[in-house]
Amino acid sequence: MAVQTVASTTDSAIANAVDLGPAAALSCRECGHRVPLGPVFACEECFGPLEIAYDFSAHDTEELRKRIEAGPANIWRYAPLLPVPADVATKPNLNPGWTKLVQADNLARELGVTGGLYIKDDSGNPTHSFKDRVVAQALEAARAFGFTTLSCSSTGNLAGAVGAAAARAGFRSCVFIPHDLEQGKVVMAAVYGGELVGIEGNYDDVNRFCSELIGDPAGEGWGFVNVNLRPYYAEGSKTLAYEICEQLGWRLPDQLVIPIASGSQLTKIDKGLRELIGLGLVEDKPYRIFGAQAEGCSPVSTAYKAGHDVVRPQKPDTIAKSLAIGNPADGPYVLDIARRTGGAVEDVTDGQIVDAIKLLARTEGIFAETAGGVTVGVTKKLLESGALDPSLTTVVLNTGDGLKTLDAVAGTGLSATIRPSLESFREAGLV
Amino acid sequence: MAVQTVASTTDSAIANAVDLGPAAALSCRECGHRVPLGPVFACEECFGPLEIAYDFSAHDTEELRKRIEAGPANIWRYAPLLPVPADVATKPNLNPGWTKLVQADNLARELGVTGGLYIKDDSGNPTHSFKDRVVAQALEAARAFGFTTLSCSSTGNLAGAVGAAAARAGFRSCVFIPHDLEQGKVVMAAVYGGELVGIEGNYDDVNRFCSELIGDPAGEGWGFVNVNLRPYYAEGSKTLAYEICEQLGWRLPDQLVIPIASGSQLTKIDKGLRELIGLGLVEDKPYRIFGAQAEGCSPVSTAYKAGHDVVRPQKPDTIAKSLAIGNPADGPYVLDIARRTGGAVEDVTDGQIVDAIKLLARTEGIFAETAGGVTVGVTKKLLESGALDPSLTTVVLNTGDGLKTLDAVAGTGLSATIRPSLESFREAGLV
Repeated sequence: MAVQTVASTTDSAIANAVDLGPAAALSCRECGHRVPLGPVFACEECFGPLEIAYDFSAHDTEELRKRIEAGPANIWRYAPLLPVPADVATKPNLNPGWTKLVQADNLARELGVTGGLYIKDDSGNPTHSFKDRVVAQALEAARAFGFTTLSCSSTGNLAGAVGAAAARAGFRSCVFIPHDLEQGKVVMAAVYGGELVGIEGNYDDVNRFCSELIGDPAGEGWGFVNVNLRPYYAEGSKTLAYEICEQLGWRLPDQLVIPIASGSQLTKIDKGLRELIGLGLVEDKPYRIFGAQAEGCSPVSTAYKAGHDVVRPQKPDTIAKSLAIGNPADGPYVLDIARRTGGAVEDVTDGQIVDAIKLLARTEGIFAETAGGVTVGVTKKLLESGALDPSLTTVVLNTGDGLKTLDAVAGTGLSATIRPSLESFREAGLV
Repeated sequence: MAVQTVASTTDSAIANAVDLGPAAALSCRECGHRVPLGPVFACEECFGPLEIAYDFSAHDTEELRKRIEAGPANIWRYAPLLPVPADVATKPNLNPGWTKLVQADNLARELGVTGGLYIKDDSGNPTHSFKDRVVAQALEAARAFGFTTLSCSSTGNLAGAVGAAAARAGFRSCVFIPHDLEQGKVVMAAVYGGELVGIEGNYDDVNRFCSELIGDPAGEGWGFVNVNLRPYYAEGSKTLAYEICEQLGWRLPDQLVIPIASGSQLTKIDKGLRELIGLGLVEDKPYRIFGAQAEGCSPVSTAYKAGHDVVRPQKPDTIAKSLAIGNPADGPYVLDIARRTGGAVEDVTDGQIVDAIKLLARTEGIFAETAGGVTVGVTKKLLESGALDPSLTTVVLNTGDGLKTLDAVAGTGLSATIRPSLESFREAGLV
C-alpha cells in the first residue's frame, strides 16, 4: 500500500522521522494509543481518529505570550503551538489568519445582547474562508512527508484554499468537488491552474471516493488534506480559538457560536481554548460552546435535541452548501462538548439563513457566506429561546464570504434604474 | 445652495471649524490658494482641485515610527498622517488596510525579475478592494461636517465599500452605479441595505449626474465620498504608499506599477512616498512610477505615448470595468508623475488581462480582479519592452478581488466530471 491509513508501530517510545515543531506524536482520541507522526489518520488498535499530541513543557507563560505578540500578523504567530517546523513563516504559503474580531455593537442592539457581541470574520483570509488556516497546516505536513500533489474532497471553499496554497507552494493539485457547486466556488478553485474534478454525487460521495483513491496506486504521493493529512489539517482551527482570546485581551469569551460541517472546527476550537488555559495564557473560567447547523442538514442538531450520543446521517438539502455534510465525522464529539460546556446545538431554515446574512450586512457591513447566515441566525434563535445569555461576552464565527454564495441573496439588487437626470431621480421617488 | 462646491473665504489665516487631526487646510493643486477644511473640492480662484495640506511639524521621526509600529493592524496606524481625528480608531468603521505585501518569487521567476517582485494585495480589505481605504477617510470627513447620508458614483467596488461603511457607521447610504455592472458588484452593494440606483449610462454619466445632485436641494446633507468629500477621500490612497514602505522595512521600492482609473490613487501614492521622505521615515532615493490601463480605456496611456500633457476623453470598452473612466480627472498629474520619476504609462488588451489574472493565480495563489490583471499584464509588457528594470525592487498593485469579476475567467472550470469510482477516474485520464 503506497500510503498508510493505519499506524503500524506499537513502540511506546515515539521517534519521529520529521520535525513538526511541538507535535510529539499522533494519539488516538478514543483509546489514547500513540504512534509516530506520519500520514495516517486512524488508530491501528481501535480505528478511532488520530489527533496531534504536543510537548508544550518547554514554554514559560510570559515568554510565550511575548513571543506570540511579537510574531507576524498571521497564524504563524502561534507556530510554537502548532504541528509545523519553527521556520514555517519563511516557507511559501498564503499566511492566513489574524482576521478581524469585529465588535458588533449594532447587531448586539438589534438582538438585545448587552455583554458584548463579536463577529470573528474569517472572510478576510486569502481565499476568503477559514479553510486557508487548515490547509496551511496540511501543506507543512505534506512538505514533511514528501508529498508532491495536494488534494482534497471539498464543498467548495476548501477547493479554492487548496488550489491557491498549492500554486504558491509549488505543489501539483487535484481537487474533487460535487459537480453542482456555486459558479463562484468552481471558478475560484479552477483559476489557480490545478486539476478540478466534479463528482456526480454529494459531498459524502466525494469523500468516500477520496478514501478509495488513497488506498489505490493512483493516489501515491498525494496528500489529501482532509483525509490522510487530517490530523494536521484539523489543528488549523485551533488558531481561531487563539486569535479570539488574544484579540479579547488574552481572555476567554463566555459563549461561542460555531458552525458545524464535519464538526472538526468546533472540537478544535475547544481544544485550543483548553490549551490556552493549560499554558496559563488565559485565566481558567467556564465557557459555553454552541453549534450551528442548517435545518436542511442538521444531523448533529437533531441528535442533540433528541438526547442521543450518536449522529444519524442525513441527505443534505440546504443553501448552506459549505456545511452540507450529512455524515459528520466529529458529530459525537460536538455533542459531548456542547453538553459538557453548557452549550447547545441548534439549526435554522434557509429563509432564516438569508435573513441573517442581510441582518449582519445591514448592521455591521459584513457580507457573510451562507455559513455565516447559519451562525448569526442560530445566535438570534438561541437568544430568543434563552439558551444564550445576552449578558455574557459572545463570539459568533463567520467562516466564509458572501461573494461565494451570491445565489442566496440574488434577489437583492437595484432600488431603481433611472436616466442620468434630476427629473428622473425625482420621478423614481428617491428624494 | 445647500452644499458648497467652491470655497468662499479668502482669509490668509486658516481657522478650521472641525478637527481632522494634522489636516491644516484645503490647498489648490494649481494655484496654491488655501481655504479652511470643508466639503468643497474646487478652488474659488482658479477652479483647480483642492487637496489636503498638513501640519506635520510636531513629529519627531523616531517617535513617529515607533508610534506607527505600535498602532493597530489597519490604516489607523497612520492616523497622525491622515485627515482624521486622533481618536478615529475608536469610531465604528471597517478598519481597512494593512493588507499583505506578498513576495512573489514564482511570478518573478516567470517574468525574469531578479531584484524582488511584490504584490500589494488589496483584495484583503473588508469589501475586497482598495476602496475601503478611501471611504474610511471620507466617512470621517462626513462625520465632521455633519452629513447623515453617504453617497457616491461608482464603477462597482466603491458601491460595496460605501454601502458597508455606511451600514457599520450608522449612516444612510444612496449609491449610483451604471445599470449594467457585474452581478457580484450589484449584489455586494445592495446587500448592506442602502439605496442602490442604476443609471442608464456609463460611469462618466453617473459622475455628471452626481455633480448635478450636489447643487440640488435633493442632495442636502449628502456626503458624496468622491465628489464633495473628494479631497479627504483621495488621501486614503496614501496609506498604500505608507504600508508598502513599512512592509519593505521602511524602504522605498524602486519601481511601482499602479492602475489608473481617475488617476487619483497613483497621484496620492506619489504624495505618500514624498511625505515619508520629508518626515525622514525612509531614506530619499529615486523611485519610478508606472501607470497601467486597459487598452479599451486608455486615455492616459494614449496621451503618454503621444507626448501630450492633456488627456483626451475616451468611451470605455473593456472588461476592466473598475478602471473604465474615460475622462480621468487626475490624468494630467499622472502624466507629470510618470515623466518626472522616469516611469511610463502602458496598456494591455482584454485578452492580456485575462492571461495575467491566470498567471498571477497560477504562480502566487492570488485571484485578482480585472484591475489586477491590468497591472500584472502591464508589468509583463514593460519588462519585455525594457521600460521596467528587472534588477530593481518592484511593487505591483492588485486593488480588487477576482470574485467580483468572475465573468472575465468564466471559461475556467472543471477539468472533468466523473462518477465517484476509481474506474471512472481512470477513464477520464486523470492518473
